Amino acid sequence: MITLTVDLGDRSYPILIGSGLLGQPGILDAYLDAVDVLVVTNDVVGPIYLKPLMELLGNRRVETVVLPDGEANKTMETLQSILDRLVDARFARDCALITLGGGVVGDVGGFAAAVYQRGVSFIQVPTTLLAQVDSAVGGKTGVNHPGGKNLIGAFHQPDCVLIDTDCLKTLPAREFSAGLAEVVKYGLIADEELFIWLEQHADEMLSRDPATLHHAIRRSCEIKAAIVAEDEREQGRRALLNLGHTFGHAIERCVGYGEWRHGEAVAAGICMAADFSARLGTFRAEDIQRIKNLFQRLKLPTAPPDLNPQEFLSAMSMDKKVIGGQIRLVLQNGIGSAEVTGKYPSHELIDMLREQFIH
Amino acid sequence: MITLTVDLGDRSYPILIGSGLLGQPGILDAYLDAVDVLVVTNDVVGPIYLKPLMELLGNRRVETVVLPDGEANKTMETLQSILDRLVDARFARDCALITLGGGVVGDVGGFAAAVYQRGVSFIQVPTTLLAQVDSAVGGKTGVNHPGGKNLIGAFHQPDCVLIDTDCLKTLPAREFSAGLAEVVKYGLIADEELFIWLEQHADEMLSRDPATLHHAIRRSCEIKAAIVAEDEREQGRRALLNLGHTFGHAIERCVGYGEWRHGEAVAAGICMAADFSARLGTFRAEDIQRIKNLFQRLKLPTAPPDLNPQEFLSAMSMDKKVIGGQIRLVLQNGIGSAEVTGKYPSHELIDMLREQFIH
Repeated sequence: MITLTVDLGDRSYPILIGSGLLGQPGILDAYLDAVDVLVVTNDVVGPIYLKPLMELLGNRRVETVVLPDGEANKTMETLQSILDRLVDARFARDCALITLGGGVVGDVGGFAAAVYQRGVSFIQVPTTLLAQVDSAVGGKTGVNHPGGKNLIGAFHQPDCVLIDTDCLKTLPAREFSAGLAEVVKYGLIADEELFIWLEQHADEMLSRDPATLHHAIRRSCEIKAAIVAEDEREQGRRALLNLGHTFGHAIERCVGYGEWRHGEAVAAGICMAADFSARLGTFRAEDIQRIKNLFQRLKLPTAPPDLNPQEFLSAMSMDKKVIGGQIRLVLQNGIGSAEVTGKYPSHELIDMLREQFIH
Repeated sequence: MITLTVDLGDRSYPILIGSGLLGQPGILDAYLDAVDVLVVTNDVVGPIYLKPLMELLGNRRVETVVLPDGEANKTMETLQSILDRLVDARFARDCALITLGGGVVGDVGGFAAAVYQRGVSFIQVPTTLLAQVDSAVGGKTGVNHPGGKNLIGAFHQPDCVLIDTDCLKTLPAREFSAGLAEVVKYGLIADEELFIWLEQHADEMLSRDPATLHHAIRRSCEIKAAIVAEDEREQGRRALLNLGHTFGHAIERCVGYGEWRHGEAVAAGICMAADFSARLGTFRAEDIQRIKNLFQRLKLPTAPPDLNPQEFLSAMSMDKKVIGGQIRLVLQNGIGSAEVTGKYPSHELIDMLREQFIH
């Protein structure tokens, strides 16, 4: 097991990464003062991992909420159902939540922890690759609104992130690939070496070789922890983590939440961001091709589905990075280097969307 | 006009207090960068004060949400309706909310500002005495849950609190008295001199003499600002501000939200806390009488209605100050001195409730 730290002063917390952590008695005790614990999970992950987690919790008073699986459940209604359970169980401000599952469970469960009694402790136990390398780290919580993804939420840091890499053994192939999109993202925004390493190890990665996986998760969490420590509330550099996400969120919304996996939409969105960067002259066509080749090998899409350009632009404009009416985008300056900017000719974006989408 | 400061480092903000502030052009400009502004108000205050507020906002793009008046509307459904309006208006993270009204408008509107796009700016324009002396200052936002008051919410500090004391001219007598309960509270927890001054000026206060009102609001805000600056997240001393509130919230819940004014319930709750303090030997019977005399002169209740002791205790136990299953209470050590404690014999609390409530 290795331990990384998200350095946020008196709210710093560890990320524990290793194989078989859910089977290690006492591993959570240092991070879990609470006697009353609500575990939020879903109906796919719960049947497999709830039992070992419960054993880690010993004699604590544990309640569970089992959500239906899927992005379509990342709603205010789901938030309300978790809050109702906390009230019904009469849990006080000294209780804790544990989120056991992927990004949806972590985001909505973390949001419940953020707003119950104006904030209670919580621990992230991510079981998907996407959650392990990205969404479980950094304190972003929230739900979707019909008008846009993650439009309602809060920053609320967990007390600990427990990453048991063995959970990935049961992850469906499509989910696994979706998580890899975020790993590629870290290479593209901050670490050319990681990107090259991914090109070299794409096959071992897809076959879930334990050492390869461990390195990818560790490096992703290291990069994310460093960026979050520097800019917790996304006033600046943290927005780089949104590479491909403004395009990606618009894809997710236009096709309907849950139709595309978040990571799939991010992969296609990263390709669109690369295309747009090249169009603006900051990125080389051959580097676009490297990205698309890598995504293809990782079983990820390299383009959006056919959508209406106006609807797509409208969905993009509900992005949280919009300032002064301008859609700010994360653009590539090279492999391993990116920037957030709203300074580009608007017509270039519209023209690109018109070319990419037929109808 | 005087300006106080809530000192919270880079999140410090001013409290502007004065007569006719809503008629001073440009008064908000220093605190309002946003072009897109959502004003949240209610159907009692809006018809009177929305027009002057709109004039202060100049050419900004302004949307309004007008809530029905009353505590019964401080719900997740109301929160959702405000969030829907923000999304429908396509407001971005650089928008701002302004809450124009009493505690309900400020709490639910502030909560919407806390969670829309993970937090946007907001300004409090409190129009009731209770909101001016208490709820608009300090960043507590939230909604009620059928299981308990303010159980869902967030800490989210405003960028400015604008207190126009002229708004109190149109405040109904019952609302006005309710606000005075919180002024008395500040005297009881932190400032014997203020309490004595209130005893001396109760009549001028009730007749809403401007100089008397100004002093009461200023001193209340000074005390609250100092306590919030010291303990923003209520890890310690801030809990003193809850004097009478654990009893009071239980009254509000047991009689049904909105039946009693919050301040009325707090007044009765302060009397119960004083009675309980005397029972435990930390407070003198003659001081209880001084409190009850003052509340009577200010047209406030000095006892709860007749309720079921078990239901009342159950409602008390959903208080946010509960730790380790123990209901912590703010108890009096004297006029101007109080402490938060969970160290008292439980049976004393049960016995007192059995004596106070007949059925």
